[in-house]
Amino acid sequence: MPSQGSGNFERGYIIPIGGCENSISPQVAEKLRSICLNASAKAVVLNICDQPLEHKLSNQLLENGFDECDIQSINNRQQANNPLILQHLAGVDLIVLVGQRPLQVSTIIGGTPIAKQIRKLNADGTHVVGTFGAAALLSEHMIAGGQEATIPKQDGVTMAPGLGLTNRFMVDYHFKQQGRLGRLLTALSYNPFTIGVGIDDGTALFISPNDDLEVFGNGAATLIDPSNLQYSSMGSAGSGDPISLFGLQMHILAQGARFKAGEKKAYDEHWA
Amino acid sequence: MPSQGSGNFERGYIIPIGGCENSISPQVAEKLRSICLNASAKAVVLNICDQPLEHKLSNQLLENGFDECDIQSINNRQQANNPLILQHLAGVDLIVLVGQRPLQVSTIIGGTPIAKQIRKLNADGTHVVGTFGAAALLSEHMIAGGQEATIPKQDGVTMAPGLGLTNRFMVDYHFKQQGRLGRLLTALSYNPFTIGVGIDDGTALFISPNDDLEVFGNGAATLIDPSNLQYSSMGSAGSGDPISLFGLQMHILAQGARFKAGEKKAYDEHWA
Repeated sequence: MPSQGSGNFERGYIIPIGGCENSISPQVAEKLRSICLNASAKAVVLNICDQPLEHKLSNQLLENGFDECDIQSINNRQQANNPLILQHLAGVDLIVLVGQRPLQVSTIIGGTPIAKQIRKLNADGTHVVGTFGAAALLSEHMIAGGQEATIPKQDGVTMAPGLGLTNRFMVDYHFKQQGRLGRLLTALSYNPFTIGVGIDDGTALFISPNDDLEVFGNGAATLIDPSNLQYSSMGSAGSGDPISLFGLQMHILAQGARFKAGEKKAYDEHWA
Repeated sequence: MPSQGSGNFERGYIIPIGGCENSISPQVAEKLRSICLNASAKAVVLNICDQPLEHKLSNQLLENGFDECDIQSINNRQQANNPLILQHLAGVDLIVLVGQRPLQVSTIIGGTPIAKQIRKLNADGTHVVGTFGAAALLSEHMIAGGQEATIPKQDGVTMAPGLGLTNRFMVDYHFKQQGRLGRLLTALSYNPFTIGVGIDDGTALFISPNDDLEVFGNGAATLIDPSNLQYSSMGSAGSGDPISLFGLQMHILAQGARFKAGEKKAYDEHWA
């Protein structure tokens, strides 16, 4: 479950972003600045993979109103366990996690002081972005891999514990390009308590402290609400079998569309 | 709209089958025989494309209890307009339409006596299969092509008038392999009065005379019911824009799962 933090502050935004690891769209960068309420905004980019990160992403943040943007690479667990790395998180308004694959990020930072600190800071108000493979990481239950297919199958997804900032939403990324609806549906059908969201490249979800989700960017989000699921054959399906799922609710959310997790309701400026 | 026929008989089954043009699964062949109530069952395969058809499909029907199975190729409109072709439809219980692409089939037989006769025979009780590209053809409003994507876009689908055996269901094929959810959603959002069904290769829909749909085969069907659509941004979207759609109902139907079009309800032997 998400960290309880100090209990004195509102949770920060949780922001999964689909797509390229080293750039975001200007409208997303602008929105990131707008949720940082301090007059002077400070960001840190944590590059959790074995590739060096270009400065494009941090430059975009600086161009869109951030006053400082530090970049740190964390390539292995030794670095993630080094207490010095925590200094880079002091006083930041926004933490951006960049990773290529969800399991790569989770195996590097899982259980380390930096992971604990990110959870605590988010609970106390710091906003956390996960982009590319780190977009999936933000959820409590993480989609780590699986088949690229439209229909759910008994063993169609690989799940793993994520960073656990939210258990209201489970995110999959690269959604449009790779036909990943089937693995998201498989994951949801295992235990249909959470909301599934697939995000296209170039698309960001801004999940507010009260779990209202807003979509920004040039793609769309495919949101699956299984809370009224009437029937699933998952419990009796054999390995590799396609499964039946009756009564899923689906919302397609393009730029500006929102979803209130509390009321399970989609809306936007034209429809409330 | 579907042909009214003579009004003396119940409509035949309408059976879109996803996948390979020259073979069907044994369970589908067996079900095809079971819906032909005559002691002696006669089928005709109409191969509506520019490729010769192997005898595999007709052999499968003969092996599964059909007593006769004629194969006829219709490669162009001259052949489709030749009154002699109608003789092959006389007294058949099952017509199997084979085509590679929906528009290829519709441009060859659209408006010809053979198309009219198939519509009339189906209204009077003859069952009609459309396989491969001809699966989409059976609907009133046909998905002829479009973008392969998960999300709907303003111009993400090419629609065309189909053979028009049913206006309750709109079918897309090659669904699992090619990520076609977006174009089906686009088509539904244009006018959300019909039920959209995407079928995997190796999967058949048996749509009964009273519009109960049953899934047979080793894949699954993705059924989208837009009848409770709460909001669509389609009317105001620009060319190529992703669109928002709130309140779609989705059912994944594997082997044996059914959907009653009248009640808009999914069910199977384990859940009714």
